[in-house]
Amino acid sequence: MANVKDVAKLAGVGLGTVSRVINNKGSVSDKTRAKVLKAVEDLNYIPNEVARNFKMKETKLIGLMLPSVWHPFFSKLAYFIENELDKNGYKMLLCNSDSDKNKEIQYIEMLKKNQVAGIITISYHDYYAHGKVDLPLVTIDRYITDDIPHIASDNYQGGRLATEALIKGGATKIGYLGGKPPHRSSVSDRMKALIEVASSYGLPYVIEETDGSNDQVAVEKFIKAHPDVDGVFTSTDLYAAALIKALRQKHKKVPEDVQVIGFDGIQDNDNFTPYLSTIVQPVEAISRQSVQLLLGIVRGEEVPKETILGVTFRQGNTSNSNKEIQAIVTRKSSNKEKY
Amino acid sequence: MANVKDVAKLAGVGLGTVSRVINNKGSVSDKTRAKVLKAVEDLNYIPNEVARNFKMKETKLIGLMLPSVWHPFFSKLAYFIENELDKNGYKMLLCNSDSDKNKEIQYIEMLKKNQVAGIITISYHDYYAHGKVDLPLVTIDRYITDDIPHIASDNYQGGRLATEALIKGGATKIGYLGGKPPHRSSVSDRMKALIEVASSYGLPYVIEETDGSNDQVAVEKFIKAHPDVDGVFTSTDLYAAALIKALRQKHKKVPEDVQVIGFDGIQDNDNFTPYLSTIVQPVEAISRQSVQLLLGIVRGEEVPKETILGVTFRQGNTSNSNKEIQAIVTRKSSNKEKY
Repeated sequence: MANVKDVAKLAGVGLGTVSRVINNKGSVSDKTRAKVLKAVEDLNYIPNEVARNFKMKETKLIGLMLPSVWHPFFSKLAYFIENELDKNGYKMLLCNSDSDKNKEIQYIEMLKKNQVAGIITISYHDYYAHGKVDLPLVTIDRYITDDIPHIASDNYQGGRLATEALIKGGATKIGYLGGKPPHRSSVSDRMKALIEVASSYGLPYVIEETDGSNDQVAVEKFIKAHPDVDGVFTSTDLYAAALIKALRQKHKKVPEDVQVIGFDGIQDNDNFTPYLSTIVQPVEAISRQSVQLLLGIVRGEEVPKETILGVTFRQGNTSNSNKEIQAIVTRKSSNKEKY
Repeated sequence: MANVKDVAKLAGVGLGTVSRVINNKGSVSDKTRAKVLKAVEDLNYIPNEVARNFKMKETKLIGLMLPSVWHPFFSKLAYFIENELDKNGYKMLLCNSDSDKNKEIQYIEMLKKNQVAGIITISYHDYYAHGKVDLPLVTIDRYITDDIPHIASDNYQGGRLATEALIKGGATKIGYLGGKPPHRSSVSDRMKALIEVASSYGLPYVIEETDGSNDQVAVEKFIKAHPDVDGVFTSTDLYAAALIKALRQKHKKVPEDVQVIGFDGIQDNDNFTPYLSTIVQPVEAISRQSVQLLLGIVRGEEVPKETILGVTFRQGNTSNSNKEIQAIVTRKSSNKEKY
C-alpha cells in the first residue's frame, strides 16, 4: 500500500506539501494541489487517519489462530469466541495454522495488514514473544511471556481429579499418556498433578509423553511397555478413545481391567461410545472470557495476566463409578468477579 | 458510513461539486474545495473508489455463513474453505447463524458493510433471493434461485446407494428418517431416491420427516410407529447414532435386527462406535470448489449454476456387509473438468 512518501515522490513535492493538501491546512498552489491529488489517486493512497477511521468504524476485526477448526475441541471454542465477538460488535477472521510455524507467521503478518484489533491464539510457537506482534494478544492454554495474558483451564486440578478418580475406582498402578507440549504450557500440570497425587497415595506410576505424531503407534507402545497399569489418564479425549480401542483389541476390558480417563469433554452426547470418563474443560467460559480479556486490552484497560478456570470430572463408562468422586465439581475461577 | 450526499449537504454544495473535488477534475474555487475537503474530513467520508481500492488491496475478505461451526460436518467444511481461501490470498470471516433468520440478516448486512468480496452460505432462508444481497454468492446444499450458483453432493445418488445397500443387506421394509428442509433443497433427493429404489424392488417403505427440533423424540417416535422396519436410512449421521442408541435400548440389534445407514461421513476414525455405515460427502471437494466458484464470480467469470459432486458409500458396522455394494464408489462431477 502506498504511503505518504510515495505520494510526495510521484508528485515531485515535499512531505509537508502533501500533508497540507491532505489536511487542507496551510497554503498550496492550485497546480501543486492538483499534482498531489493526482498522485493520491494514481497510487490509491489513503491517508493514515482515513484508513484508521475506516478501520475503527467499519472493520472491527479480531483474528483467531487455531491449529485446526476441524478438531472438535477447537470448533466448539471457535463457535463461542465468534458468538461473544459478535455480541460485542466484532467480526472474527479464522486462521487454521495446522501447527505450522511458518504458516502461523504468515497469518500473523496478514492479520496485521488487515489491521485487526487483536489476536486470540492457541499457538505452539514463541513467535509472539519477541515483540514482533505489536497487537493486543490473548493466548489460550499456552504461556508465552509474562506480558501476554493467557487463559487456561485449571490443568492441575484436572490432573488431580482424574488421578483421584482412578485411585478411588481401584487403580493400583497409574499411567499418564499425553503429547509433550513443545513450549511452556500449563498442560504439563495435568501430568504433574498425577505424579503428586499418586505419590501421596504411595502408588506406582508411569509417564509417557509423545511427540503427538501418531496416536495409534503411541497407544500400542504404551500398552506393550506397561501391561500392569490398570488406570490411565490421557491428555486428550481422542487419546483416550484410541487407547480404549487398542486395549479392547488386546481383550482388556475397560473399565474392569483398565480404567481410562480423558481430558477435554468433547462428547456432547452419549450416542457414540465409549462415553468417556473425562475432565470437562469450561469451553464456553474460556471462549467468552478470552474475548473479554482481549477487548479489555483493546480499550486500554489493565487485565489479569493469568486467568485459570475450574474444570469438572464427568463420570462416563470408562472408569469405575464412585459416588464420592461424582460429587467433586469445582468452579474455581481466579478472576471470575471481573466479568 | 457517510456517503457523497452527506458530504454535499454538510459542505452546502451540489453533488457535482463534490465529485469534481474528489476526482480533481473540472473547476472549483479554492474556498469551495476547502469546504468540501473539510466535510470529507469531518464525516470521515471515503470516496467509493478509494474504499473499493482499499478493500481490493487490503481486505480480501470472504464471509462464510454456517448454521454452527460447532457441528462436526460444518467444522470440516470451514477448515477446507478457509484453507482454499488462504491459498488464494483471501481471508475468511466466520459467521454462525444458529439457523436464526434475523441473526443471519444482521450478519449479511455486517458483511456488506465490511465490504467482503462475496459470501459462501449454507442458509435455511430465502433472504438472498430478492436481490437484497448485492454480492457474489455461492450456496452449499441449498437451492435458492436459478441465478445463485449452488454446489451440493449428489443427494439422489446417496439415497440410491444407501437404499440399495439396505436391500442387498437383507432389508424387507425400508424406513427414511430425516429433517424436513424448510426450503427447496436437494437434500430432499435423498428421500426421493429411497422411494424410487424401494418401489423398483417392490418393497414397502415408510417416510418420517421431522422438524429437527428434537432428535431423541423423533427416533423414539419412529421406532414405536414402525416396529417392523428392518432397514433405516437417516438424513444425517447424528440421526443415525441417536436411532441406533434408541434401538439398542429396546434390545434391537444393529445391524442384525435393524440395519442403519447415515449420511455425511463425519467420523474420521473408528475409535468411537457405532462406526456408522454411511454416505460420505466429499467435504474437501465441496469446500474447495465452492471457493473456486465464488472467486470465479468475483473475477467476473461465468460459472456453472449447479455443481453436483459424487458421494461414496462407506461400509461401517451398522449395515450388513455386502461385497457387491462395497465396490460402488462413484466420482461423478457435473463440471469437474472446470477446475
